[in-house]
Amino acid sequence: MADQPSANGTPPPWRHRIHEIIFEADTPAGKAFDLALLVLIIGSVVAVMLESVPAIRATHGRELYLAEWAFTIVFTIEYIVRLASVRRPMTYARSMFGIVDLLAILPTYLSLLIPGAQSLLVIRALRLLRVFRILKLGRYVDESQVLVSALIASRQKIIVFLTAVVTLVLLVGAAMYLIEGADSGFTSIPQSTYWAIVTMTTVGYGDIAPQTVPGKMLASVVMVLGYGIIAVPTGIVTAELTRPRPARSNTQVCPHCMAEGHANDATYCRKCSERLNPES
Amino acid sequence: MADQPSANGTPPPWRHRIHEIIFEADTPAGKAFDLALLVLIIGSVVAVMLESVPAIRATHGRELYLAEWAFTIVFTIEYIVRLASVRRPMTYARSMFGIVDLLAILPTYLSLLIPGAQSLLVIRALRLLRVFRILKLGRYVDESQVLVSALIASRQKIIVFLTAVVTLVLLVGAAMYLIEGADSGFTSIPQSTYWAIVTMTTVGYGDIAPQTVPGKMLASVVMVLGYGIIAVPTGIVTAELTRPRPARSNTQVCPHCMAEGHANDATYCRKCSERLNPES
Amino acid sequence: MADQPSANGTPPPWRHRIHEIIFEADTPAGKAFDLALLVLIIGSVVAVMLESVPAIRATHGRELYLAEWAFTIVFTIEYIVRLASVRRPMTYARSMFGIVDLLAILPTYLSLLIPGAQSLLVIRALRLLRVFRILKLGRYVDESQVLVSALIASRQKIIVFLTAVVTLVLLVGAAMYLIEGADSGFTSIPQSTYWAIVTMTTVGYGDIAPQTVPGKMLASVVMVLGYGIIAVPTGIVTAELTRPRPARSNTQVCPHCMAEGHANDATYCRKCSERLNPES
Amino acid sequence: MADQPSANGTPPPWRHRIHEIIFEADTPAGKAFDLALLVLIIGSVVAVMLESVPAIRATHGRELYLAEWAFTIVFTIEYIVRLASVRRPMTYARSMFGIVDLLAILPTYLSLLIPGAQSLLVIRALRLLRVFRILKLGRYVDESQVLVSALIASRQKIIVFLTAVVTLVLLVGAAMYLIEGADSGFTSIPQSTYWAIVTMTTVGYGDIAPQTVPGKMLASVVMVLGYGIIAVPTGIVTAELTRPRPARSNTQVCPHCMAEGHANDATYCRKCSERLNPES
Repeated sequence: MADQPSANGTPPPWRHRIHEIIFEADTPAGKAFDLALLVLIIGSVVAVMLESVPAIRATHGRELYLAEWAFTIVFTIEYIVRLASVRRPMTYARSMFGIVDLLAILPTYLSLLIPGAQSLLVIRALRLLRVFRILKLGRYVDESQVLVSALIASRQKIIVFLTAVVTLVLLVGAAMYLIEGADSGFTSIPQSTYWAIVTMTTVGYGDIAPQTVPGKMLASVVMVLGYGIIAVPTGIVTAELTRPRPARSNTQVCPHCMAEGHANDATYCRKCSERLNPES
Repeated sequence: MADQPSANGTPPPWRHRIHEIIFEADTPAGKAFDLALLVLIIGSVVAVMLESVPAIRATHGRELYLAEWAFTIVFTIEYIVRLASVRRPMTYARSMFGIVDLLAILPTYLSLLIPGAQSLLVIRALRLLRVFRILKLGRYVDESQVLVSALIASRQKIIVFLTAVVTLVLLVGAAMYLIEGADSGFTSIPQSTYWAIVTMTTVGYGDIAPQTVPGKMLASVVMVLGYGIIAVPTGIVTAELTRPRPARSNTQVCPHCMAEGHANDATYCRKCSERLNPES
Repeated sequence: MADQPSANGTPPPWRHRIHEIIFEADTPAGKAFDLALLVLIIGSVVAVMLESVPAIRATHGRELYLAEWAFTIVFTIEYIVRLASVRRPMTYARSMFGIVDLLAILPTYLSLLIPGAQSLLVIRALRLLRVFRILKLGRYVDESQVLVSALIASRQKIIVFLTAVVTLVLLVGAAMYLIEGADSGFTSIPQSTYWAIVTMTTVGYGDIAPQTVPGKMLASVVMVLGYGIIAVPTGIVTAELTRPRPARSNTQVCPHCMAEGHANDATYCRKCSERLNPES
Repeated sequence: MADQPSANGTPPPWRHRIHEIIFEADTPAGKAFDLALLVLIIGSVVAVMLESVPAIRATHGRELYLAEWAFTIVFTIEYIVRLASVRRPMTYARSMFGIVDLLAILPTYLSLLIPGAQSLLVIRALRLLRVFRILKLGRYVDESQVLVSALIASRQKIIVFLTAVVTLVLLVGAAMYLIEGADSGFTSIPQSTYWAIVTMTTVGYGDIAPQTVPGKMLASVVMVLGYGIIAVPTGIVTAELTRPRPARSNTQVCPHCMAEGHANDATYCRKCSERLNPES
């Protein structure tokens, strides 16, 4: 078949071209494709959201049903083209974006067998993350890498912090259960722990609130603690972000192994030595 | 006419003088004008606010109606003088402050044709931003530039961050819609997304709150996430603010093209080469 | 009189000694005095708080009434001794602490003339700030100076920030008044502005909450903005705190002009050249 | 007895081995023990939480009762082995972890004498902090030390900050009590102070909220203040975290005095000169 790799390891020109359009955002055609895709994704998410509103479903149910199938067919074609344009389709199919792309179309087909399965279409919102690929025009790729690497570099401090918070929330929840009792809404330790989380994160719904004097005193301590504890993750992330930044990279994706983050002057993939598409 | 520019490119003295008073805050007369204007703006905003309180409108409606027209006439005169004192009136009219100044007087005149249009007078609050020009006495101009440039320098990280937050809020909203259902107030995905925003930003009105155990568990995760996610914008802005500051600039506005931010030793506008008013 | 300054400018020994005890915290006697005073202040504040609880006033009203007079008499004696031990009593009487000390005793005497005046006794809580003087044992004086000087150094950025927040809150409040109307609780622009402050600061009582779809959309934007805006003051203060610290100073107060913050090796007051009490 | 220290100061091999397993996390056996213990602790906490839910207690009360006794017996054996494997049992028994380990088993035995004492079993949640010891595999020990030392280094600034917040909350609470009165729920100064804490920490339950115009104005100021004050602890912690880190240390615990934080090349305890277990 024509779509087999040629002997010298370079893909046939049509696949090269399609790969460049749908997997990269460095060329005008790639940018246009990504922007059109983003509009489609936003449209499909809005349709799923509107479809869940009873009043709109009653008046525009048929139009939304047709739109749902239209989006699903377009996304199915896109999924098949993506599979066809990479040399190793399974690498794409098993990647994070590959799984999201599949999950975004499955529920509509499932709804033919199982009524109501289209509620799962909300997973299409995950496709919005493709916006990051589109934002990779220019300097955005560096910015998201700075944020992500700051979070990764902080992950040990964050785990230590979260463990301390979970222990504190459990102890406070148990203490409030003993102090307040079921009359104030603290009906069990899990319920009291839920209250402790609502309070310590300063969300404060007010559906459960202490009624007794010792309960209010403990709640006051928890609030001031929660107010102060927020300083810790903020300090952690800020300390990471004030460090020097890494060097720039471009938006190319290896056509062979899907690796990203290639240096601007890279000619071959640093993971599998495949030749990258030359930048236009 | 006398207000045509003279042959050597300098404006007639009276326009020079008026420009210095109403567009700059470096001279005593300019400071006095800006302070008087700020008092008038605050007074007009307070009048609009009081006029919206039913009890006050019932007892002092007539006085507030007269005050509204008095403020409008004063601001109209100010607007005309501003137009007359710059050489290219359209440049001012199309600038941000020019549009705000016009919008601040239009609703009163409109209310003669369309009853109720004076509700739009609240846009006068935007004129409060002129306080920044007044604060530009001395070092304030630098401070606001530091804040604004820190936000501009962070805009790419902020866009990446907001996209991630929007995606997360949509997914959480959809999940809560499936988990909780209409009985707990999660009547649609948009409604659930609204709840997710209220919760993740730690506002927590409590008008919608999860009732089921899985809903409360997901809500707890969302709260802790929201509590931690606030660290990211804080870290971004702090990292920018801890960088070295730019050099100082003065408060002059070019009489020709309205450009601001001239260096202290500038004699000519860096955008259009017009001679700036000499500092007093 | 014996308390006139002697010819060579040094105060009589007894006044020197009393000044050292009640105005400074560097000697053992001074520390003991300050700690005893702190206990009395906390006791008086607790008494005022308990007196306001109807159930406690009903059962222990008489004891609390006596305690109030006991605290007032002790604080009156302390105030008179303070006046007597400084060379220029009016400088103390007009200082911040002098005014607070007077306000802490006046309401009890006023209550003999005007029943109910003792409600104003709550101003005694301000005397708690004397704890800063007591904490000035050792390194605390530096820490509070670091915090205060960080806030002072940031004051221009904070004013710029607050002006922007006030303008934003007014505009949002007016917009919500037009969008929601009185049915949802947005009965006037001041009321809507109050809601905007409650929301933007992420407090979120829930007593007023948007009911319409456009109102909820605008509220969502306000919440995300408020969530992000908190990054600005945090960044400002952090940027100041990460700067190098000032040198240390001691806890002495000039017996002549009440100036504080003398360097450790200072022999004379840097404000009025009065000789400081030698450190023990 | 066999567990006396031998003449040359080294413990008998079996105690050395047990000490290495249950007190350290550097060896495979130590890691396996700590992980198994963590699973048991989480299981016991979940059992206590489930037992407090009325519906679950009604249907699975017997199984949870048996589980409670099973966990208690296992933890009792662990406690005895810990006592036996250190040379000075009282040092362990009086350490923080020793007291927590004892408190985690006492309530079950107490419940034989005093019905209901098992409610105190919630203290077992404190044993979750053992996860820090387990996380001390590799670099986690440094991260928790960085966080803890940042908090310790900031403790003076935090005390100064908390004193200012407490004073402010008392004054605001008293002012709201005078302004709002009992009709709005501000029934006493302690109640109003509780409201001030709920508001200033941006929790905002909404169970008490101002109703009058002056009350809402004061509340608005308090909210903006609280919103801004959070910048101070965040700035303090961030300033500490951006400082250079201390050098690494390992996870060994001295078998003699329970001291931790030994340097990687330490052969003897820096507190009591006892020979540490050699690292495997």
